[in-house]
Amino acid sequence: MRLVVQKFGGSSLSTAEKIHRAARRAIRAKLDGYRVVLVVSAMGNATDDLLALSSEICAEPPKRELDMLLTTGEQVSIALTAMAIHAAGHEAISLTAAQLGLYTDSVHSRARIQRIHRDRLDQELSCDRIVIIAGFQGIDISGEITTLGRGASDTTAAALAAVLDADQCEIYTDVDGVYTADPRIVPQARKIDQISYDVMLEMAAAGASVMHSRAIVFGKKYGVPIHVRSSMTDGKGTMIMNETSGMEEIVVEGVTLKEDLAVIALNGVSNQAGLAARIFAVLGQNHILVDDIVQNIYDEGKLANISFSTNASDAPAAQNLCQQLARDMGFDGVSIDKGVSKISAIGVGMRTHTGAASTMFDALAKAEINIKNISTSEIVISCIVSNVDGARALRSIHDAFGLDKIEPRSNQINEIP
Amino acid sequence: MRLVVQKFGGSSLSTAEKIHRAARRAIRAKLDGYRVVLVVSAMGNATDDLLALSSEICAEPPKRELDMLLTTGEQVSIALTAMAIHAAGHEAISLTAAQLGLYTDSVHSRARIQRIHRDRLDQELSCDRIVIIAGFQGIDISGEITTLGRGASDTTAAALAAVLDADQCEIYTDVDGVYTADPRIVPQARKIDQISYDVMLEMAAAGASVMHSRAIVFGKKYGVPIHVRSSMTDGKGTMIMNETSGMEEIVVEGVTLKEDLAVIALNGVSNQAGLAARIFAVLGQNHILVDDIVQNIYDEGKLANISFSTNASDAPAAQNLCQQLARDMGFDGVSIDKGVSKISAIGVGMRTHTGAASTMFDALAKAEINIKNISTSEIVISCIVSNVDGARALRSIHDAFGLDKIEPRSNQINEIP
Repeated sequence: MRLVVQKFGGSSLSTAEKIHRAARRAIRAKLDGYRVVLVVSAMGNATDDLLALSSEICAEPPKRELDMLLTTGEQVSIALTAMAIHAAGHEAISLTAAQLGLYTDSVHSRARIQRIHRDRLDQELSCDRIVIIAGFQGIDISGEITTLGRGASDTTAAALAAVLDADQCEIYTDVDGVYTADPRIVPQARKIDQISYDVMLEMAAAGASVMHSRAIVFGKKYGVPIHVRSSMTDGKGTMIMNETSGMEEIVVEGVTLKEDLAVIALNGVSNQAGLAARIFAVLGQNHILVDDIVQNIYDEGKLANISFSTNASDAPAAQNLCQQLARDMGFDGVSIDKGVSKISAIGVGMRTHTGAASTMFDALAKAEINIKNISTSEIVISCIVSNVDGARALRSIHDAFGLDKIEPRSNQINEIP
Repeated sequence: MRLVVQKFGGSSLSTAEKIHRAARRAIRAKLDGYRVVLVVSAMGNATDDLLALSSEICAEPPKRELDMLLTTGEQVSIALTAMAIHAAGHEAISLTAAQLGLYTDSVHSRARIQRIHRDRLDQELSCDRIVIIAGFQGIDISGEITTLGRGASDTTAAALAAVLDADQCEIYTDVDGVYTADPRIVPQARKIDQISYDVMLEMAAAGASVMHSRAIVFGKKYGVPIHVRSSMTDGKGTMIMNETSGMEEIVVEGVTLKEDLAVIALNGVSNQAGLAARIFAVLGQNHILVDDIVQNIYDEGKLANISFSTNASDAPAAQNLCQQLARDMGFDGVSIDKGVSKISAIGVGMRTHTGAASTMFDALAKAEINIKNISTSEIVISCIVSNVDGARALRSIHDAFGLDKIEPRSNQINEIP
């Protein structure tokens, strides 16, 4: 029997009417012959409201208690969504992560999924019920309540789709798909019909906030197509799927902007094997999310400058750790450049086409925007610029790659109504 | 080591400042050498807000999903209270019913506690932490989330006090103790310093809303003194404790009013052994809360009229069940009197003093209030009157028993600061 996982974000559940609409979507899929698993986020701004409440009480609340607090948002949503389906005359049951058996490690506020038990899910689905799962939350082996990080209900949905070998994972949101750039910044941005996991992964990592990266990883690893679509309309959205041959024809598929970063530079690091490993191991152990890393060597290869970008909020902690490392490892010093943004151009076509980098640098030069750092990978080119130049830089490269003009590709999407 | 269970109701936790105040109480008890377990309700009107949300979605939500929804209120409170204690520099940990291991039966919305595991509690207390438990909630043996009924955080507190053999169970609330009558209705009402479990039990059952009956049962059964006191002041409240000889000197200790009841009368019931048992078994199986039962026989003992009171909200269901029983058992019929109130006078002194009933009837007669039903027990006299007469009836009997004039008794209370 076919199975679909549908995920509804907070903006798609912010009122009773929107919850009824989500319920109707689920019921429609069920009537179309699917087994249906819903994953829901906290209603509207519920998570932010809870965070505001906690900051009234305690400036730095223990993360365990913050997880205890925040997971109530999704629990409210699962109960109300089950009630809405019940009100429409269909059977539904809500499950918390503990009831489902969604186990994570014990890193509060940034836990990673370790395993998901199927027994309860299978049992409820075989009773012909729509099963509603609280996104974002997990439990560790001792029964402690964890969360997977902000926006991680997508991850819950994709992980469930993987475990259940779902035919599709639908992500319902307040936009109608993935765009070539953020339409709030680039009005000419165009909706993308199909995109490969890899490109979507790079776009999400580079700042496209429509999808959570970890969700795409699950989709890719287990081959679950992810359909990002609007909860307000019935139109097709963007299908995130395995790469098809047609995709390579386009050099750059999207451009992204990631604001409010900081670049931390470590100068005069002795260029020995293992030193970079040690630096980033320390940052990782302290749960600093490191974005791009750039290294240059100088002084005949004896010394290196290593720089990396990180969220502005993690920057002070990262700077402290690096200063400690500078003392321990005896390198020159640590400098920090706050208030920077990263713009990236992403596309699988870069593998087989050349010239994307020079097109990008040329566009920025024409716009008189200074580039601070550059890093490239097989399908991404990224430049660090000042926050103030970010939006203008994005518009100029979107224009330079002609992203507003590309013809829509074939729309052979195995769509779920 | 001495141990105290402190319970804070929703009105004592309605703002960040009040949560900090509750935290300070707990810390003070800890600094005084107590092991401290806190039980908290949902903040302020959180439960009502959640109920309003659910009724926007579904007129008759499944009780399982309602429990799923409502238990989030207490989970928010435990997390915030733990944060407040942390902010004051002390160690605390919050636990849901599932984490604690507070097991109930599976009757959603009215579950009964079956057992409480001590292991986690003992472990956390031995680490010198203040442990904060979500009131009102439980889990059944399958891990389903249950609730103990409105106001049942008191029950959670008393049950924990019993299991832990606590020195005292403190119930912090927005009033400063138990009164001879509801002061909102009877301005002359006086705070009671000491009261026996039995009298408090009857007062709670008869409408004194300050304490939940089931909590008092736990206190009595396991001999845990319960101190009902104000969360806003340091004054002594009312100590609910074993009966002392001095208590019998007072005939009536308090009067109560329970409004919005219905009386259902079954007429012409054949007076055979087992019939009443069958009637109330059916009502019980359908979770109708039956208040007082009155039976009179007539026709040379062959027939009986049986009437009982119930909450107005349960009355339609109760009436349907009784009509079904009338058909099955062949009795005359079922009549219902809606919109009635019960006034009760309660005191252990009634056991040894006479004349309380006539004092009560006389007071009502002088006030020209018609009595519909009368029932008495060893320490209670109750009369059913019209809702419109309720408040006036309460004032007249409070006055008739001279409850505003009684001297305070000895105040030898083993108080926890």
